Parts: sequence; structure tokens; C-alpha cells
Amino acid sequence: MKFDIRAVDGVARRGTLALPRGVVETPAFMPVGTTGAVRSVSPAEVRESRSDIILGNTFHLMLRPGSDVIRAHGDLHKFMGWDGPILTDSGGFQVWSLADKRRIDEAGVTFRSPVNGAQVFLGPEESIRVQHDLGSDIAMVFDECTPYPATRDEAATSMERSLRWATRCRRSHVHRRQALFGIIQGGMHLDLREASLQGLMEIGFDGYALGGLSVGEPKEEMYAVLDSIVPGMPSDRPRYLMGVGKPEDLVRGVLAGIDMFDCVLPTRNARNGWLYTRAGVVKIRHAKNRTDIRPIDENCGCPTCARFSRAYLRHLFVTGEMLGMRLCTLHNLHFFQGLMADMRTAIEKQQFDSFSRVFFENTDPGNRVMA
Amino acid sequence: MKFDIRAVDGVARRGTLALPRGVVETPAFMPVGTTGAVRSVSPAEVRESRSDIILGNTFHLMLRPGSDVIRAHGDLHKFMGWDGPILTDSGGFQVWSLADKRRIDEAGVTFRSPVNGAQVFLGPEESIRVQHDLGSDIAMVFDECTPYPATRDEAATSMERSLRWATRCRRSHVHRRQALFGIIQGGMHLDLREASLQGLMEIGFDGYALGGLSVGEPKEEMYAVLDSIVPGMPSDRPRYLMGVGKPEDLVRGVLAGIDMFDCVLPTRNARNGWLYTRAGVVKIRHAKNRTDIRPIDENCGCPTCARFSRAYLRHLFVTGEMLGMRLCTLHNLHFFQGLMADMRTAIEKQQFDSFSRVFFENTDPGNRVMA
Repeated sequence: MKFDIRAVDGVARRGTLALPRGVVETPAFMPVGTTGAVRSVSPAEVRESRSDIILGNTFHLMLRPGSDVIRAHGDLHKFMGWDGPILTDSGGFQVWSLADKRRIDEAGVTFRSPVNGAQVFLGPEESIRVQHDLGSDIAMVFDECTPYPATRDEAATSMERSLRWATRCRRSHVHRRQALFGIIQGGMHLDLREASLQGLMEIGFDGYALGGLSVGEPKEEMYAVLDSIVPGMPSDRPRYLMGVGKPEDLVRGVLAGIDMFDCVLPTRNARNGWLYTRAGVVKIRHAKNRTDIRPIDENCGCPTCARFSRAYLRHLFVTGEMLGMRLCTLHNLHFFQGLMADMRTAIEKQQFDSFSRVFFENTDPGNRVMA
Repeated sequence: MKFDIRAVDGVARRGTLALPRGVVETPAFMPVGTTGAVRSVSPAEVRESRSDIILGNTFHLMLRPGSDVIRAHGDLHKFMGWDGPILTDSGGFQVWSLADKRRIDEAGVTFRSPVNGAQVFLGPEESIRVQHDLGSDIAMVFDECTPYPATRDEAATSMERSLRWATRCRRSHVHRRQALFGIIQGGMHLDLREASLQGLMEIGFDGYALGGLSVGEPKEEMYAVLDSIVPGMPSDRPRYLMGVGKPEDLVRGVLAGIDMFDCVLPTRNARNGWLYTRAGVVKIRHAKNRTDIRPIDENCGCPTCARFSRAYLRHLFVTGEMLGMRLCTLHNLHFFQGLMADMRTAIEKQQFDSFSRVFFENTDPGNRVMA
């Protein structure tokens, strides 16, 4: 892995992250391919949306189809037909949010599979082994996701365990062409976040992520963590804000010096008929779209807007035709990747300050906030 | 519309049907785009499957989105983003199979909409007007679908009404760039079928279709109608076997001199995970596919077989990811269109007799028959 910063504007960074399977232009947004597919769209369509890298979920994939099936194909890339870079999460977040009857101890997490009720164990070594089997370009350390809110004591105990697990992940990581990123925890307690970062830097990782954000806390708390912690993150390594976010959070994150993001928002909202435009959200099922022959966004260059009307897309949703979800997913992915491309250009031109000011002036939070 | 027969082998015909929006190579198979979409696939993908023409359902489209919405886009082609030829059925079949509380009289059919319960009337003039609004390249006359089984009297009464309706359709048809096809009815009674054909030829149509087949009758009865009636159908006009069918029915139909077919089979079966290959049907959900890294068919040139394994497709079905239905639909459409292309080539080479003999020798009816 080779990370080059090509331009800096304030603390915003424009870079390239060279990985074994391709180059990622940063700041980058990673669509989420939960179970080996970015829902409803093909790998070629993901590529066409200008996505350089996607995220795969270790937790989901280890349960179905199982890492043995993926290993039989070579790796996750060959399994799902995506030849670009993949980042895999560690399963730490999902095991807490999705598994039944989970029990945690120093070794790791024991849980009942939500798929078939079988008892499964996932700890640092197991997560690294599964991610090795998946053959992702970037693996994440297995961490404990600190709930929100958490007292200082709870957050400290959790963060310290995550640090010990990070050490075990680093030790058990033997994949030579796979980068490994550490994950900063500590809840909303800035001193714990700082201690987590220092601990991870002592272990040494190829990149550093902020985890445990966008978990229900007020925006201001997330922004406070960003502004406090990001400046201390190694400037020569990628900085990844996990599970974020809404368009305004992406701009805010880049303003704080973040290089990578992932979120289900563009794909999940598309499947619910919530479509992003610079002028606000289009709710495609709305009756006013019944006879509207305009595209979702007349200024959009996506394949959906090039060919299909709001009335047609509404009709597909109303009749339950899955092509509608797919066409809307394409649009939202193009919107998110277009925003990232515009941010990269603004940084290159040293105009990111004015770009973000104009962006926030034109953004109606009541309309944009749709999670 | 211009129909040219380029080669004849026995009574099998190889032709081209030139329509305002493109040329259809015959014998042709038309995928069904029920409500303005060939379910799960895009117009570009339909085209890539070598489909020259698709079928749209007047009944479904008049209820949703309504012909006013389609007219606002110009025509059905612009509404759904398909710029090739479209044939629309008349709604006669659907009104009988799908509508609630239908009542028929000489004027037409009054029914309650299955969408919203509203009372709707559909008769010959209304069907032609809606098909005019849809702007299809080929319209079909509004007919009464004779149920199976039907006594000779029932079939005769029904056929005669369909003939009177055909006259009204011909009279009310004013679209100058739209062809109009008549539909031969008469149940399984060959003399009634013959009378229907003679009546339609006296009225005069651009093409002639066999309706009311594949409605539950034994294969032998359908084949008897084909062998008895097709030879008398005008040889210089396209002959269309409606709602058929299985691969072996397509071969049998071409052997009898049919030029056009439509059926939901390739698309509907794909969504259920039933995939066609020359070696038989692959049921993709079957557990034996869990670790099978082979494509559906190693000899298939479709985009799905080029890139995705049986194990991956099974995984998509098991996890409920809609991309699976789409990839399988692409495969089945390619299979059907590949069969049509092979038949066209065999006719050109005057080898259709041996082609069909080999086809039936290699076809296991127990495996192929999956409707």
C-alpha cells in the first residue's frame, strides 16, 4: 500500500491510495457491499459510478456463504466479480448490533448466528483469519464498539480492551499484500480517544480509523471528536471515518482532514425511493411525480437521469418492480461519488473553504437528513 | 411494416420484419415487459440478450401508470427507455385471467380494477385507443380468450364474437405507423379455428396470431392446431404463436411455420432460480451449488456466465439479494435468444430438420418442462 498526498488545503487532503488491485482517489467514499454485492447493482455499475473501492462485511460473509466458499473462488473479489480494491470491516460492529445472545470476554465474542442459531465465536485472531480468507486489500482490527452513551469508566474499559485486541490483530496478521488499519475508540471522551490513538500508533498500523461514531450521538459530539483527534492522526497514513455518512458529514469530515468514508445511506435510501440532488431530496413515490417527465436531476450525468423520468421511476416503485431500486441506487451512488470528486477538485484548486461554505449555505438540513 | 422471408426449410421460415423502430430477425422470441419493464433487467441488457422486440401488456399499463402518463412521455418506448420495436397485446387475455368481477357483453368487458377496485370498461375500440397511446409498433386485436376446455358451441360463440370485435378493431385502427395483427380463436376445434382464420383474412391484417393456446390443454392438442391451421395462414405475413413457450415448444412451433413467440417463462423462471442450459435445468438454490465455482453453463456466452459462479448466484438467492434474479434473468434471456439464433442459422443452412431432431433427442422433457 502506498499513500501519497497530492494537495492540501487547510487540513483537507487530496491523495491517492495505491493498493494491489487499483488506485483509490482520496477523499474516497466506499459503497457498502454487505453480503458480497452492493445491493441491486452490478460490479460494472459500481465502477461506472466512479467508486474506486468498496466495503465488505466480514460478519455477514463468515455466516453466509462462509469463508470456505469464498476461498474456493480465490478471494472475495473473484466471488463477487469486483476486481477493484476491497476494504473489509472486522465484524466488531455487526456482532454487537446484529447477533443474538452475544457474550463478550477477553478472548472475544460468542454469539448465536442470526442465520441459523449456531453458536459462533469471533475474536481478534478469528476476524483476521476470515479477512485473510476474504483476501481484502485493507483489513480492519477487531474492536469492541462502545455503545452511546457510555460513562467514562465504561468507555475506558472498552477502549483498553480494543487496544489489547488491536495488538493481537497486529500479531496474527500475516497477509503480506493486505494493509491493516487500527480503529480509534473511546466514546465521546476526548482524552480516551487520544489515549486510544497513541496506543494504536505505538502498535503501528498502515492506516487509522475513527470507530464508534455516528452511533446516535448529537452531531456536535462527533464533530468535536473529529476536530480534536484527527490533527493528531499520522498525516502520512489514510484516515478513515467509519460508517459516515450523510453528504454534509462527508464535507465536514473532509474539512477535518478525513480521507475515507463508508455508509449504506446512498444505497439504502435509494431502495426506499429517497433520491439525492443538489437541490434537496426527491421522494420518488410522491404522487406529484406521477406525470413528471423530468429526470430526478436535470444536471445529473448518471445513466438513470440520462434515460428515465421521475414518472417512470415512480411507476416502478408503485408496481414493485425491482429495476426501480437499481436505477435509483445508480443515481444515489453517482451523487455521492460526484460530491467526492467535486471535493477532490476543490482541494486541488485550493478552494475547499469556499466550496464547503457554498455547500452548507445551499444545504437544507431538514431536507438532507434522512438516515 | 415490411416482412421478407429470406429462407425456407420445410415449412420453417427465416425472415426479417422491418418495423418503424428496427428490424426483427425471425423466428423471433419476444421477452415480456409486463408493466413497462422486462422484470429486473434494463433496456440495454434486453438488447444485449439479442432481443429485437419486446411485448408490453395493454391491460397492466392502462391501469398503471395509465395511458395518459405514457402519452405524456410520447410513447411506451420513451417511457421505458427501450428504443426498439414493441408489440402490445390487446388486454383480452389479462382481463379474463386477472380482473375482478368481469362481465362481458357484445360491447366489451366491464371489470373491477385489481389495482384500486374502480370499474373499468375495455372493448375493441378502447383497446385500440390505448394501444395507439402506447405507440407500439404492432397492436393486437381485442379478442375473447376462449377457456379450456370449451364445448364446440361455447368455442363457436366466443370465436364469432372475437371476429366481430376484430372487425371493430380494424375499423377503429387509425395509427398509420402501427401494424395490426388478427388473432385466431376457436379453442381446440379445428373447423372453428379454420373459420376464424378465414374470417380474419377477409377483414385483412398485417399479421396473424394463434391465441388461446398454452391455456392448459395437452401438448398434442396444441400441436394439432399448429399443424392444421398454420399452413393456411398467409405465407407472406408474420405468424405469431401467443404466450408460447418452453424451448421445445419454440422448436416445435418453428417446425410448424411460426415466426414469432412471446412468453414469461425465461424471466419468471429466472426469478425462481430455474436456469436453462442445453444439458438441462439448473436449480440454483440447490445445496449442491453451495461451493460450485463453475458458471451456470460453461458453454454459455452470457455476461452472467462470463463472470459469476453458481455458488455466488446461489448465495444471492439465499440472502435475498435482488442482483441474483437479474443475473439469472440475463442468462435465461440469452439462452432463449441463443436458441432462436441457432434455429435461424439452421433454416438458412437448410439443416432445420436435423437441428430439431438433435434438439429433441437431447431434450429431457421431465427436466425441461418447468412452467
